[in-house]
Amino acid sequence: MDKIEPRTLPGFMELMPDKQILFNQMKDKIRKTYEKYGFLPIDTPVIESSKVLLAKAGGETEKQVYSFTKGENELTLRFDLTVPLAKYVAQYQGQLSFPFRRYQIGKVYRGERAQRGRYREFYQCDIDIIGDGELNIINDAEIPSIIYDVFNELNLGKFTIKINNRKILNGIFEHVNAKEISQDIMRTIDKIEKIGEIKVKEELEKLNISKENAEFILNFIKINGNTDEKLNALLSLNVQNENFTKGVEELQTVAKYIRLFGIPEDYFMIDLSIARGLDYYTGTVYETFLDEYKSIGSVCSGGRYNDLAGYYTDKKLPGVGMSIGLTRLFFVLDELGLIKTDKKSISDILVISMLDDLKPSIEIANKLRKEGINTEIYFDSKKIKAKFKYADKLKIPYVIVIGEDEVNSGKLTIKNMVTGEQQQKTIEEIINFLKNI
Amino acid sequence: MDKIEPRTLPGFMELMPDKQILFNQMKDKIRKTYEKYGFLPIDTPVIESSKVLLAKAGGETEKQVYSFTKGENELTLRFDLTVPLAKYVAQYQGQLSFPFRRYQIGKVYRGERAQRGRYREFYQCDIDIIGDGELNIINDAEIPSIIYDVFNELNLGKFTIKINNRKILNGIFEHVNAKEISQDIMRTIDKIEKIGEIKVKEELEKLNISKENAEFILNFIKINGNTDEKLNALLSLNVQNENFTKGVEELQTVAKYIRLFGIPEDYFMIDLSIARGLDYYTGTVYETFLDEYKSIGSVCSGGRYNDLAGYYTDKKLPGVGMSIGLTRLFFVLDELGLIKTDKKSISDILVISMLDDLKPSIEIANKLRKEGINTEIYFDSKKIKAKFKYADKLKIPYVIVIGEDEVNSGKLTIKNMVTGEQQQKTIEEIINFLKNI
Repeated sequence: MDKIEPRTLPGFMELMPDKQILFNQMKDKIRKTYEKYGFLPIDTPVIESSKVLLAKAGGETEKQVYSFTKGENELTLRFDLTVPLAKYVAQYQGQLSFPFRRYQIGKVYRGERAQRGRYREFYQCDIDIIGDGELNIINDAEIPSIIYDVFNELNLGKFTIKINNRKILNGIFEHVNAKEISQDIMRTIDKIEKIGEIKVKEELEKLNISKENAEFILNFIKINGNTDEKLNALLSLNVQNENFTKGVEELQTVAKYIRLFGIPEDYFMIDLSIARGLDYYTGTVYETFLDEYKSIGSVCSGGRYNDLAGYYTDKKLPGVGMSIGLTRLFFVLDELGLIKTDKKSISDILVISMLDDLKPSIEIANKLRKEGINTEIYFDSKKIKAKFKYADKLKIPYVIVIGEDEVNSGKLTIKNMVTGEQQQKTIEEIINFLKNI
Repeated sequence: MDKIEPRTLPGFMELMPDKQILFNQMKDKIRKTYEKYGFLPIDTPVIESSKVLLAKAGGETEKQVYSFTKGENELTLRFDLTVPLAKYVAQYQGQLSFPFRRYQIGKVYRGERAQRGRYREFYQCDIDIIGDGELNIINDAEIPSIIYDVFNELNLGKFTIKINNRKILNGIFEHVNAKEISQDIMRTIDKIEKIGEIKVKEELEKLNISKENAEFILNFIKINGNTDEKLNALLSLNVQNENFTKGVEELQTVAKYIRLFGIPEDYFMIDLSIARGLDYYTGTVYETFLDEYKSIGSVCSGGRYNDLAGYYTDKKLPGVGMSIGLTRLFFVLDELGLIKTDKKSISDILVISMLDDLKPSIEIANKLRKEGINTEIYFDSKKIKAKFKYADKLKIPYVIVIGEDEVNSGKLTIKNMVTGEQQQKTIEEIINFLKNI
C-alpha cells in the first residue's frame, strides 16, 4: 500500500511529550493562579456562527480567520477568547452573577502567514471581570496583582508590569485638538528613541500640530521618575481636560491599590506611552515585560474597556482583563532555555521486574498508586539495560528493581536515576520517602 | 445600532460556570488517573491536512467531518484522537520511547445531525499504549485496571467492565466457514433477547449456515457463568482453530492479570458478544456499563489493535487503548443528577468589607492566597445583603466579614454559608481551619 506522509501543518505547535509536560505545567500554574483569585471557568465552542463571531470584526480580522460553510451554516473558528466571552455574557446575562469573574484557557485560530514563532493555533489564557453597568476601579489594580502572582509562579526571573490609562492619552490629544490624528501622533512619538526629540517635533509639526502643542506633547512623553514622581508631573502639567483628569485620578487609585495588593515597587511602573489598541481599551492598560528579555515583547497584556458586548446587547457591560498568549510564550522561553521545572516526568517511579512472574511488581505498583504516587510498570521482556534506558529517556527519577532476593527479603532496591545511588527499602519506606520529596 | 443575536450553535455544549466546575473536576480526575499510571501527555492540532487525517477514512467519515479550504490547503478538523495519534507516532517514531504510553484529552469534531445529547464538538479522553513491533498482553489487562480506577474516582456507583477477544469471534466464524458474513451473523445474534433462540436459528439458516453450525453458534453465544466457567466452557467447545485458541489463551491471561491488578470479581466480566467495530480491533475489546444506568450504553470502550499507523508507515505499531467520551457522559450524568462533588465553587472563601477602606480586606486575602486558599474579595459597593447573595449564588462555602470591630480586635467573623453558623477567629485560625477541611 502507498503510505501517506505523516506531517503536521506549518504554524501548528506539536510538542514531544517531554516538552508537553513542561507546557502543561505552565498551563496548570496559570489556571491555578486564576482560580486562587476566584475566577470561574468557562469553555466556549471553537466553532461559532460567523455572523456572531464577526459581529465586530473589520476586514483585517476577516482575512485572518478560518471561515467555512457546513451545510447552510457559515462557520468561523474563534480567533480570540474575548468575542466568545462577549457573546456568552450577553447570551446568559440573566443567569450570571456580577461582577462576573471568568477565566478561559483554550486554543484560538488565526490564518496568519506562518513564520517561526508565529502560530496559527495557539493557547490564550484569559481572565476578565465584567460588571453589570459599572465596575469598581479596584478591579483594575487586582489584575496586575494576578499578573504578578502568575509570573512569579512561572519563575521566569524579574519582570515589570507597565501601566497606563488611555484616558490620559485621550485627554492629551483632546487638549491639543488632535484627537482625529491621535494614531499618527502615537506612531511619531514611538520613534523618539530612534530619531530623537528634534525630528519628532518636526514630524509633529508636519501633522499640523502647533509648535507650542508639539512642545507640550514632548513634555508629556518625557515625564520621568518613579511612580509618584510621574503622577505628580502629570498633575503639574495642569491640563484642563475631563478625560485627562479622570485618567490621572484612576491611575493614582490603581497605583495605590497595586501597592496594597503587595506588588513590590520595582515590579510595576507607569509607562505613559502604552496605548494597546486605541479603539478597544478605554481606561487602564497593561503590558508585561521580562526584564532580561525585553525583546520578546509584552508577555501579558490587557486593560479596561467600557462596554464588552455592545454588538449583542443594550446592557452596558464594562470590564477589565488580561491575556497570556501561552503558545508563543512557551516557544520563546523554550528557545531561550528559560523553562525551569522540578518535575520533568509524569511517572514518579518505574517498577522493573527481573522475574517472569509480574505479580510482585503489580502489587507494589498498586500500593504506590493508592498513595497518589505516579507509577509505571515496565512490562516488555527486554534486557535490564533497556529497561533502565527507558526510565532514563523518560526522565523518571526513581526505579524500583524487583528480583528474587527482593521478594524474599521484602526489601526492594530503589535507584535514584540522577545520582545513581541505590538503596534497600521496604515498600512503606519507599512510599514515605517519595511522598516527602 | 442593530444588535446581533448572541447564540451558540446547536450541537455545541456550552455550560454555565457552576456546571463547568463539575465538568472540569471530572476532566481533572480522568487526567490525574491517567498520569497515576505514567501516561505521557500529547496535544495534537485540531486542524490537520485532510490528506493526512482522512488517509484511512471511508465515505461515512468524510461526510461527517468538518473539511474546508484555506488558501491552497485542504484542511479537516480532527474527528477523533486516534488518527492524530497514528500520525504522531509514525511522524516522530525515532524520538519516542516504546512502549509509548500517551494520553490525550481534547475536543474532536463531527458534523452529525444535532440532537439532544449528541454533540458536534466533544471531549475525548484517550489512553493508548503503543509497542514497537510487539506489545505484551499484560497491557491489555492494565487498561481495564485504569478504567476501574477512573470510574471509582468519578464515583458513579457500581459499574461493570465487559471484556472479550475479537480472535475468539473470528475463530468461531472461521470454524463455521462464515467469515465473510460475520457482520450479518453478529447482527442476528444481537437479536436473541428480542426474538428468541428458535427465530435466531432460523435466521442463521437463512444466511446459509448449516443446522449444525447454527447450533454451534448458539451454544457459543449461550455460554454462561462466572469468568472461569466461561473460560472453561470456551475450552470445552473444542474448536480447532488457531485464532480461537489464541483468543481464549489471551482472554485467560487478561483475566488472570486483571485480578492481579486488583479489580474486584464483580467489576469485570467476560461478554462473548462484544465486538466493537469489526475491522479495527484485533484482540481484546472492552466496554464499560454503569450497572444502574445500562441504557446509557458503554461509557468507556477500547481494545487491542494490530497495527496503529499502517497508512503512514511500514513499521508495525500494535497498541491497546480506551476512550471516554466525556461531553456526552457529562450530559447524561447531569440529566440523571448523578454528578457528585465536594467542591461546588472555585473560591473557598469570599471576603466582604463593611468599610470603605479595602486595605484590611486585601491584606487578609493576600494572606489566604499565600496559603493556597482560593479567595475572592467583593469590591463592588453594594448592600451587605447583595454581597451575601453573591456568595450564595456562587456556592462559595465561607464568607469573612470585615468591619471596624474586626479590624480593632483582630478577630474576624467567618460565616459558614451552608449552616449559617458564624464564628470569630483570627486569620491564623481561619487559615488552619480552611486548610484542614
